[in-house]
Amino acid sequence: MRVELLTIGDELLIGDVVNGNAAWLGRRLADHGVDVTRGVVVGDELDVIVAAVESALRRADVVITTGGLGPTYDDLTREALAKAAGAALVRDPALERRLRERVAAAGRTLEPMALRMADVPEGARVLPNSEGSAPGLRIELGGGVVYALPGVPHEMRTLVDATVLPELEERAGLPAVARRTLRTAGIWESVVATRLAPVERMDGVRLAYLPSPGEVRIRITAAGADPGALLAEAERAARDLLGDCVYGTGDESLDRVVHRLLAERGATVATAESLTGGLIGAELTAMPGSSATYAGGEVVYATELKHRLLGVPAELLERHGAVHPDVAAHMAAGVRDRIGADYGLAVTGVAGPDPQDGRPVGTLHVGVAGPGAEPVVVSPRLPVAAGGPEARGVVRRMTVVQALELLRRTILGLDAEPGTQHARKDPEE
Amino acid sequence: MRVELLTIGDELLIGDVVNGNAAWLGRRLADHGVDVTRGVVVGDELDVIVAAVESALRRADVVITTGGLGPTYDDLTREALAKAAGAALVRDPALERRLRERVAAAGRTLEPMALRMADVPEGARVLPNSEGSAPGLRIELGGGVVYALPGVPHEMRTLVDATVLPELEERAGLPAVARRTLRTAGIWESVVATRLAPVERMDGVRLAYLPSPGEVRIRITAAGADPGALLAEAERAARDLLGDCVYGTGDESLDRVVHRLLAERGATVATAESLTGGLIGAELTAMPGSSATYAGGEVVYATELKHRLLGVPAELLERHGAVHPDVAAHMAAGVRDRIGADYGLAVTGVAGPDPQDGRPVGTLHVGVAGPGAEPVVVSPRLPVAAGGPEARGVVRRMTVVQALELLRRTILGLDAEPGTQHARKDPEE
Repeated sequence: MRVELLTIGDELLIGDVVNGNAAWLGRRLADHGVDVTRGVVVGDELDVIVAAVESALRRADVVITTGGLGPTYDDLTREALAKAAGAALVRDPALERRLRERVAAAGRTLEPMALRMADVPEGARVLPNSEGSAPGLRIELGGGVVYALPGVPHEMRTLVDATVLPELEERAGLPAVARRTLRTAGIWESVVATRLAPVERMDGVRLAYLPSPGEVRIRITAAGADPGALLAEAERAARDLLGDCVYGTGDESLDRVVHRLLAERGATVATAESLTGGLIGAELTAMPGSSATYAGGEVVYATELKHRLLGVPAELLERHGAVHPDVAAHMAAGVRDRIGADYGLAVTGVAGPDPQDGRPVGTLHVGVAGPGAEPVVVSPRLPVAAGGPEARGVVRRMTVVQALELLRRTILGLDAEPGTQHARKDPEE
Repeated sequence: MRVELLTIGDELLIGDVVNGNAAWLGRRLADHGVDVTRGVVVGDELDVIVAAVESALRRADVVITTGGLGPTYDDLTREALAKAAGAALVRDPALERRLRERVAAAGRTLEPMALRMADVPEGARVLPNSEGSAPGLRIELGGGVVYALPGVPHEMRTLVDATVLPELEERAGLPAVARRTLRTAGIWESVVATRLAPVERMDGVRLAYLPSPGEVRIRITAAGADPGALLAEAERAARDLLGDCVYGTGDESLDRVVHRLLAERGATVATAESLTGGLIGAELTAMPGSSATYAGGEVVYATELKHRLLGVPAELLERHGAVHPDVAAHMAAGVRDRIGADYGLAVTGVAGPDPQDGRPVGTLHVGVAGPGAEPVVVSPRLPVAAGGPEARGVVRRMTVVQALELLRRTILGLDAEPGTQHARKDPEE
């Protein structure tokens, strides 16, 4: 079964709105074993919409449209479906009654143009919209099926779960694929891909790499007679090749993993940040319940604050400047003691765009002070093009990932340098 | 000139990634008078990409693709362009040298598959990528032009601004429309729209409202014989109706405005954060040169830290809990004195999902302590749907905006409550 999405609206082409509906639909359908094969965005023009529907139906069995079902005169999906079907638009008395009741219940009077939402192409089925005014529509066209859904996200989602997905699942039968995403931090995309070559060669297995600053997610897709069993086998193989670089799966982000590890141990962390200005604390408090594991932090942006608030020795700062491994170690121990947490996590480095104290952009030292141990410091070299206008943001984001990853490794008692102990397992060596 | 976008990648169809690149491109081009007429998303399949490029070129003069230029074997844009052009893929020695240098500078060895990023279809021009490994490509095809850009957002953006936009503007000639975006904070979308009704009625002027948590951007589009003059007139009218809620224009974000205002006065700010966990400090250090205006901060997430680190009276915390206007005032004055800055900026509130100390989600108190004055506190009621899965992030983001806006108003000597002194100017009254 081939499914295409058609998202309708000028606001999407002009970038006023990000196409979150298409992403949500793609994921929801994929989770139920249905693959979207193409997504198209067009503006609010009748002939363009008609042509896009017809062209999608030449390729696909099912076309799902979102948007263009509202009351205003640039909402043209109803007209487009009627035109594509060569059918008349007919006002539906039950829909009209419901619209009048909704408006009366809100103590307002009906704008004449709102009645357009009661118009239905002949031969189409109305999909009741429990969340809003404009119903969805289902119409058979050119050997395929079109589901037309409203563009308001929660209305669209409710209609998909209530009506579209059950019908598609019935039409498709048993799912032919199974999927899982592994998440890694602190390891390069090309290194990940090289290590996973043996998995890539497995029959019926496909890998996709989704990089973001400092992280790579690997999506494993297994297809065949028993996709679940094949997926489990591929995942085992991938984990064996990647080792402890895999920190989680699916939607489990690194901050959530760290939070869970701390919570399991009844432990807390405090942060001392320089180049990130508070990003690490923000990340560690993003999820509900973070007060159980995050105590607080110090943003020691000015160099003298590193000494005055965290007790980094003044002569160390004078001799080496603020960007030095020993400074990270002192910051980590200082913030742990000062806030009174089990772990202290500290970063110092150069976000750019200019070098600092003679150190190039991308220099980074991360320190973790654990309970009763000497602080651990790693100094990864961040791969950044100096001077780029967005490099600063990327360095800061990578720093957050490196910091959380070192904390994770320290809590678990793993080697501080991600991936090093697995170079031996590298299939290329 | 007709421009179509073609976004390439399974991860977009499957919804692992939201198509932010298409939204950014649509907006950037629209801001420069170039309208995108269609957006298409396809997966990582060679023949599908070739067909999509060819079909886009039948409708459009310019096709911009993003994605599929990376090192792995599912990156197929280079091959697709070569196939569509009937040209060979040739390894570029200068690109290969640059790849080897980048990898060597990071102290690693080059994976063989990474060399694919040095392959160029014959007849294509290389667009140097200052931000990453994979260059962009420009190729003339079927009477049109294709720009192939990497999918990594900051790399794509840099290439668009450096190369694609200047070339498109030259190709398009004088724009028929002029556009400008005004930025407001702390005022509701419906209030903005009601106030701007007279501007909306001006001939040749169109307004679009772009809300994000705590902010509304207003895009003014002027069309006609002299779009520049009409735009200037519409902007004057809009500014008169909105008053000091307008904090900036275009890409000038609120943190940059605050940074500029502080820099002009040679002043610094320190932050004391509770529910935001460091987000405000992170925002104030996002732009280069922020060390001139941002000193440092305290993330006092645990309640006792508000007393111990910032001197908030213990009996105040005992009597009223941590979420109280007086706590915000003490935090602001405490962090100003402790860090040694000209301004102290503090927030305390309830991000959710659960109420805290009997206060509902969305409760917020923002305090600013200026040089030599009593702290100012505002307590805006944040409009949030309690219990929604996205509410916590929205509350935190709105808190950042409210905090920066109060700091801006305090520096400028404006009334603390945004918009109140302009209700009198409301055209509806």
